[in-house]
Amino acid sequence: MTTDIRLAQSRPAQVTTGPIIGSRKIYSSPAARPDILVPFREIALHPTANETPLRVYDTSGPFTGNAAIDLEAGLPQPRAPWLAARGFATVTARALKPEDNGFVPADLLVPLCPAPQIIRVARDAQLVTQYEFARAGVITDEMIYVAHRENLGRCEAHAQAAALRADGEDFGAAIPNFVTPEFVRAEIAAGRAIIPANINHPELEPVIIGRNFLVKINANIGNSAVTSSAAEEVEKLVWAIRWGADTVMDLSTGRNIHNIRSWILRNAPVPIGTVPIYQALEKVHGDASKLNWSVFRDTLIEQAEQGVDYFTIHAGLRLAHIPLTARRVTGIVSRGGSIMAQWCLAHHHESFLYEKFDEICDIMRKYDVSFSLGDGLRPGSNADANDAAQFAELETLGELTKTAWAKGCQVMIEGPGHVPMHKIKANMNKQLEVCHEAPFYTLGPLTTDIAPGYDHITSAIGAAMIGWFGTAMLCYVTPKEHLGLPNRADVKTGVITYKLAAHAADLAKGHPAARLRDDAISRARFEFRWEDQFNLGLDPDTARDFHDETLPREAHKTAHFCSMCGPKFCSMKISHDIREEADRIAGLEAQKTLFKESGNQLYMPLSNG
Amino acid sequence: MTTDIRLAQSRPAQVTTGPIIGSRKIYSSPAARPDILVPFREIALHPTANETPLRVYDTSGPFTGNAAIDLEAGLPQPRAPWLAARGFATVTARALKPEDNGFVPADLLVPLCPAPQIIRVARDAQLVTQYEFARAGVITDEMIYVAHRENLGRCEAHAQAAALRADGEDFGAAIPNFVTPEFVRAEIAAGRAIIPANINHPELEPVIIGRNFLVKINANIGNSAVTSSAAEEVEKLVWAIRWGADTVMDLSTGRNIHNIRSWILRNAPVPIGTVPIYQALEKVHGDASKLNWSVFRDTLIEQAEQGVDYFTIHAGLRLAHIPLTARRVTGIVSRGGSIMAQWCLAHHHESFLYEKFDEICDIMRKYDVSFSLGDGLRPGSNADANDAAQFAELETLGELTKTAWAKGCQVMIEGPGHVPMHKIKANMNKQLEVCHEAPFYTLGPLTTDIAPGYDHITSAIGAAMIGWFGTAMLCYVTPKEHLGLPNRADVKTGVITYKLAAHAADLAKGHPAARLRDDAISRARFEFRWEDQFNLGLDPDTARDFHDETLPREAHKTAHFCSMCGPKFCSMKISHDIREEADRIAGLEAQKTLFKESGNQLYMPLSNG
Repeated sequence: MTTDIRLAQSRPAQVTTGPIIGSRKIYSSPAARPDILVPFREIALHPTANETPLRVYDTSGPFTGNAAIDLEAGLPQPRAPWLAARGFATVTARALKPEDNGFVPADLLVPLCPAPQIIRVARDAQLVTQYEFARAGVITDEMIYVAHRENLGRCEAHAQAAALRADGEDFGAAIPNFVTPEFVRAEIAAGRAIIPANINHPELEPVIIGRNFLVKINANIGNSAVTSSAAEEVEKLVWAIRWGADTVMDLSTGRNIHNIRSWILRNAPVPIGTVPIYQALEKVHGDASKLNWSVFRDTLIEQAEQGVDYFTIHAGLRLAHIPLTARRVTGIVSRGGSIMAQWCLAHHHESFLYEKFDEICDIMRKYDVSFSLGDGLRPGSNADANDAAQFAELETLGELTKTAWAKGCQVMIEGPGHVPMHKIKANMNKQLEVCHEAPFYTLGPLTTDIAPGYDHITSAIGAAMIGWFGTAMLCYVTPKEHLGLPNRADVKTGVITYKLAAHAADLAKGHPAARLRDDAISRARFEFRWEDQFNLGLDPDTARDFHDETLPREAHKTAHFCSMCGPKFCSMKISHDIREEADRIAGLEAQKTLFKESGNQLYMPLSNG
Repeated sequence: MTTDIRLAQSRPAQVTTGPIIGSRKIYSSPAARPDILVPFREIALHPTANETPLRVYDTSGPFTGNAAIDLEAGLPQPRAPWLAARGFATVTARALKPEDNGFVPADLLVPLCPAPQIIRVARDAQLVTQYEFARAGVITDEMIYVAHRENLGRCEAHAQAAALRADGEDFGAAIPNFVTPEFVRAEIAAGRAIIPANINHPELEPVIIGRNFLVKINANIGNSAVTSSAAEEVEKLVWAIRWGADTVMDLSTGRNIHNIRSWILRNAPVPIGTVPIYQALEKVHGDASKLNWSVFRDTLIEQAEQGVDYFTIHAGLRLAHIPLTARRVTGIVSRGGSIMAQWCLAHHHESFLYEKFDEICDIMRKYDVSFSLGDGLRPGSNADANDAAQFAELETLGELTKTAWAKGCQVMIEGPGHVPMHKIKANMNKQLEVCHEAPFYTLGPLTTDIAPGYDHITSAIGAAMIGWFGTAMLCYVTPKEHLGLPNRADVKTGVITYKLAAHAADLAKGHPAARLRDDAISRARFEFRWEDQFNLGLDPDTARDFHDETLPREAHKTAHFCSMCGPKFCSMKISHDIREEADRIAGLEAQKTLFKESGNQLYMPLSNG
């Protein structure tokens, strides 16, 4: 995704660590694999709740745990033993070149992350990608890990799972009551899900992306114009995953791009995505017409060795599609797309990404870098949504999906963009049809163009809907979209907004793990457990601050009323009285024979009780 | 709607006046009625745009115009001549009682607004409500006014109207290409739309609420615990309508409630709604069991004489429904609903609002106060959505709708609340079915419960969807929902968020007036007209501030790039190059015969051009 490439105004001295307030990090293992430690966050509840702590999905990695963080040493490597067991070849890293860091002068060079790295690469004829293992019937450690993670650490389907599933509308998805490793394998083998997991990213806590799993979100980061430290760049990652980003795309450009990426990857517990054409363009001094297969190929290897988990490749934008954009209101708005369009026009030649697609697959397969097939022709306005250019490219992406699968690669497909509500479903339907159910990964979509400054919201509407319809991952949009670089507050707002959109989608699909949290917070509300309500929310700090603006005293945290109605006027309190009264009456009623008053039942049956 | 009853932290010395930046207020008249002046806002565009200024709907009243504002004199009265021509009786105002102002001590009494007021009331057998006029085949001045307003001042359907209509999905609505006064009349006569317009509110700029018109939004205001001035209370209204609130509900409780309402009504260009049971409860010292028909009846007359345009009446909550809520996760969350439930249980008697409904209609008809039939049993959590209690009440509201129509009253129906996405459509369908297409007026709905502090967003998702499906008005939710009292920033955020949701709904329905603004802003984006992009948005100030955080210099306002990609890397700029190149090639192609390369067309046809 090609937005929000850099962050403004974030200069922390070090990265943010420690638990989210009211929570603690725990690790849980599948029954048969005590060596696999899957992270969760447990939210403690007030003793009066008489409920066990609520366990939620946790993307924040070791940064919210108890262990000390040493960015120079990099994170622990949960995948290292799994990868070691697969017997990959190890190679010497490709030699670093001046252009890899944007020809940065020596005095401005950010050093490489000193964490030691083994560079793995597949041997000939060796199974390497999750797709290849899945097709061969092999359940990998990563598959076991994500199954436990999707189940929130449960060992079997919970009691209400089937009812919640039946209550939802999943548009033909096939969400199970309980996720088994075999289910994960089958979904990956069918191409319906991916685990982006470069064999050179042992620090990764694996995550699965597919429409029969929890909807995921991506946050974008990128280097600042002036970088003061590597820690500052890593902090952007840490901050985004703290609030729930499932994957992070590093959209850096310019100087120090290679070396900063080394710090990010060695400290990333989530999959990292990039758009290699950005770095390739830097290597040819920003002149798109000078791009060529050689420099692009070299960039793929460079980044694959570093451990990037997925690459956005705009191979679906063909020369023949470009004139379809000429009468658009907003032309081509994808940066990668416009770079490739410029190249095609300059050379009047078919895209080299399209022509060299087989070779790209061969490289990416060797490291298990997943494809995120870029939508270079996504619409940049409601007026351009679902047009011939967009759908022509989507059809090409479907064709490339089959090629990539034949080559053994994992694939997801990027999608729009700007789409009014009534045209969103058609995007999902067409993607499912022409891309053979490969996971869809969309940017929003924004449902109107008239609210610059609020595009996290215009797009959250579309994101929740398309997530419900079947999109597997939602790329966030911040309030600064179209206007400027997001700062820390904007990144948090973007991530939280997309977490709630993804969760709304999970709820509507009837995902059995989704409503547990809604119900827990609703019970907390009804029982005036204010601290529990704050802590069970996506952003406990903001919820608490908002409450304290009106009712700051500690006693108000246990008050059986709130500032909206005041003490004598509280609907929740009245409801408690009603419940007691209704219980009393229901008891009386049960002792009566059928009673009618003027032909109407005095009390209707408790059909929802 | 029973949320956000007061505002915290707003103590302006006077109300906000002056135009929104980049805009000017204009008035336009229907061709046949030069005496009717309908307000709009015109957004000026940069000369290079070669476009006429964009005209948008304007709810802000005289406060954004050039005339001086004098709160003591009240606003100009556009409806005064229309009302005078109808020959209503005039009466002496009901005598003010100590309980009307919550028994406030004399030294804390806020004075009545001194603006002179004529108290009008219908004579026997006289047509008075817009519904009665419509049924009698009479087109009122208000109908002519709203028709011109809905057309954005156009005199005929614009060229693309039919295409935009055909492009939308309106779920059986019947939005015309161009709104005529006769269409307005027919919609009101069918009960599908209302113009809330008390005959004692001559200051009103009429607005129509119905699913075949632009989707409207409501903002709630209410008195602060400590009120420093009447201007402060009026400012809450002025601030909400400045950003686009189509109606405002005054949910005040406690002291000075009557006198503050006089300041609000005499200075309100938008319809004002209230929940009379709140004031009635104050009159019986907050003890719901002491409520009775006499005090409620007296409150209706008191508020109707003041000019309140619509009343939320929770008459659909019957005694028999109450046990249906006993096993809910969050019980009864409507304040009005819980007050009435408490009354019913205390007396073990059917609701007096239900029993006295005919008499309520007779009172409201005499002043043309519209019904907003309250959903006292709306769900307070996703778990309780679409349950037996909610739908039992909705069916009763449908029954009451027919009664109110038979009595000559205008009616809209309130709706939820908290509803996951997959259960939203069922709400709309059932409301259309059992309430006979009376306009639906919903609070959100919130699509998940897990994001306190972000419920403007969880609810904007649901609001946009239900607006698309046919809801006529959306009650806003602020970021403080569930947590505290909204401040000025929260109110603005809530209003803008709901404006964008309503607009997204209009776009999806294919409303012919909607996409003009999206297209204008998209063209401004594509042409790097930064000031135009800011000014065409819903919140020019925030858009400009966000842009200036990264690129503060004035020269950047005309720069052909932005901070996201920087000057050498701009996708929009590349698109311009592509358009030029494609134009050149298209010219060449036109001179060629059909050309194929390896069986593929080199250029696909310009089907979207």
